[in-house]
Amino acid sequence: MYSLDRDPLLLTPGPLTTSLRTKQAMLHDWGSWDSAFNRITAEVCSQLVDIVHGSETHVCVPLQGSGTFSVEATLGTLVPRHGKVLVPNNGAYCARILKILTYLGRESVELPFAEDQPADPAAIETALMADPGITHVAQVHCETGTGILNPLAEIAAAVARQGRGLIIDAMSSFAAIEIDVRTTPFDALIAASGKCLEGVPGLGFVIIRRTQLEASAGNCHSLSMDLHDQWAYMQKTSQWRFTPPTHVVAALHEALAQYREEGGLSARGDRYMANCVALVEGMRELGLKSFLLPALQAPIIVTFHAPAHPAYNFNTFYQGVRERGFILYPGKLTQVETFRVGCIGALTPQDIAKVVDAVGATLRDMGVAVMV
Amino acid sequence: MYSLDRDPLLLTPGPLTTSLRTKQAMLHDWGSWDSAFNRITAEVCSQLVDIVHGSETHVCVPLQGSGTFSVEATLGTLVPRHGKVLVPNNGAYCARILKILTYLGRESVELPFAEDQPADPAAIETALMADPGITHVAQVHCETGTGILNPLAEIAAAVARQGRGLIIDAMSSFAAIEIDVRTTPFDALIAASGKCLEGVPGLGFVIIRRTQLEASAGNCHSLSMDLHDQWAYMQKTSQWRFTPPTHVVAALHEALAQYREEGGLSARGDRYMANCVALVEGMRELGLKSFLLPALQAPIIVTFHAPAHPAYNFNTFYQGVRERGFILYPGKLTQVETFRVGCIGALTPQDIAKVVDAVGATLRDMGVAVMV
Repeated sequence: MYSLDRDPLLLTPGPLTTSLRTKQAMLHDWGSWDSAFNRITAEVCSQLVDIVHGSETHVCVPLQGSGTFSVEATLGTLVPRHGKVLVPNNGAYCARILKILTYLGRESVELPFAEDQPADPAAIETALMADPGITHVAQVHCETGTGILNPLAEIAAAVARQGRGLIIDAMSSFAAIEIDVRTTPFDALIAASGKCLEGVPGLGFVIIRRTQLEASAGNCHSLSMDLHDQWAYMQKTSQWRFTPPTHVVAALHEALAQYREEGGLSARGDRYMANCVALVEGMRELGLKSFLLPALQAPIIVTFHAPAHPAYNFNTFYQGVRERGFILYPGKLTQVETFRVGCIGALTPQDIAKVVDAVGATLRDMGVAVMV
Repeated sequence: MYSLDRDPLLLTPGPLTTSLRTKQAMLHDWGSWDSAFNRITAEVCSQLVDIVHGSETHVCVPLQGSGTFSVEATLGTLVPRHGKVLVPNNGAYCARILKILTYLGRESVELPFAEDQPADPAAIETALMADPGITHVAQVHCETGTGILNPLAEIAAAVARQGRGLIIDAMSSFAAIEIDVRTTPFDALIAASGKCLEGVPGLGFVIIRRTQLEASAGNCHSLSMDLHDQWAYMQKTSQWRFTPPTHVVAALHEALAQYREEGGLSARGDRYMANCVALVEGMRELGLKSFLLPALQAPIIVTFHAPAHPAYNFNTFYQGVRERGFILYPGKLTQVETFRVGCIGALTPQDIAKVVDAVGATLRDMGVAVMV
């Protein structure tokens, strides 16, 4: 039997620690033209749409590549060449959307917020009222750069009142934090295989309002990223246009089965919340303070202030925790020294307690004063 | 132990049948920021460049997604916005390059050839002499639509004489058919994980002349596909810009180890040639004729004429062969009814003999007269 005993646990926002069962689904080869594989793709897509209760109005278009590929594909496919996108910006992934729009030659309007403050629905609505030329709002749900949760339902309501299209980057929240398209209307929602569904990375997907997708032919700047073309071909043939990452798709199919067995979104979200509470409380007992106010914190990834101690150094800290069996994530803030710890993946509060122990032991070894 | 006994063998041009050892490399989760994974990426890239003897002049840029994503990324990154690309066209993957160039708004010139005829180096050189505005030639090496091998060395020499850039789609030939950049000069060569290296699909890569890549900043139409940006970031950080398909990368690393153990390119090419010979001879004994003249046939995938018999039907044929444990591939020609059989993957001539037996038995069951 293949031993997995020495693999470190990943406390990162994806790739993350997956179950052995999910990985074992990759011990097969699949013909990408074969009906057995087509069935897997169709089941995955239908189950993903069901998570947002969208089967009446929305379809799922999967896309090869990382989640960012799907974000770019969505902007390129849905935003017409003369469109204009409002981007509420409170972090690195919001900034990435602005960068993509510049590449695409689509006009954008940035609405800046502080990184520790949620996007403000009233400010978004005011910006939309002030500029009727804005066709879409591109909103990150959980901004993984800090871990902040933006008030999506209120933002969706504001965008709907103003009659614009909403594109949601739900990369790190989808399937763990409730988004119901019947009450939180959107044109498109983007996520990926290797996040809260606990699949392996290599695949993004977009849940798109069917009428908007149908109207989007000819918009896209890229053949590979043309979601209209990808969808039209799949409708016609049940197959992918270009070679799919068959093993990654099969792993996601198996991960979705485990998602349902666990109890779906509410159970997954509860486990992540328990992980997050155990993490924040355990770290606080060590004297480590989280960056965000608790009310703004999504139970996905937590940013911690680095210890304000001369002996602290991120690389040494990272290596020490890694030698104890856990992989942390660096901070993504430019002004403040931080590090990040993920709450997602095949992990429980018991695992999180061990992470906290490893962090404490590493800091003590480094001579960084922590509470005990 | 996980049983793989009932998985059909894939006689397809990728995804293909991989070794259990390659698949078992996916039984681990990797942190995409961690040095252990960075080392895997660096080793894969360096080994890929070595296959074309390019370490002095060329670098490898891996890219998430299918091979077509890498083809599009290469065209978008290397061809300036005012560039012009000559595309010798003798099949479906040449036509796809033309389609990509249309999406990208890059000017193209098609040089058409019959699907059963190789691209003609003299005609290419004449076309280049006639139009000094052509900046690049985009040449498919083995055109998987039929299985034809184009005369790459002569084409590369013609392109070099005319001082233009050569972009090679070597998707289905790389690592099995020799391409030595010291004698077959090119600006870029594109291939993917799930072809002759016998990895799993989900990753493309481009071997690019470093000077050309360095000069390409600002060309690309897409953030996700900007190979200059991807490479610059990797140079600086040893990491991928966006989440890599970690399991696919790890599988390719393990597949490359087996490639070296087998004896590298010549051994891999010899095995595929033995598969191809066994296939063509075995099928001929059944009365099934291959589409191409033997001299034009690459040992990668073989197109066969469908039996000219009223009882023949591809779907019934496909299902019959599948029930016997083998997955074939449909033809990709519009004028002639054909089917295709791949020679690549973790297969030997002994496997091919069983494929031929399964084809014969299926046709007999269908009442299609075959020789016995």
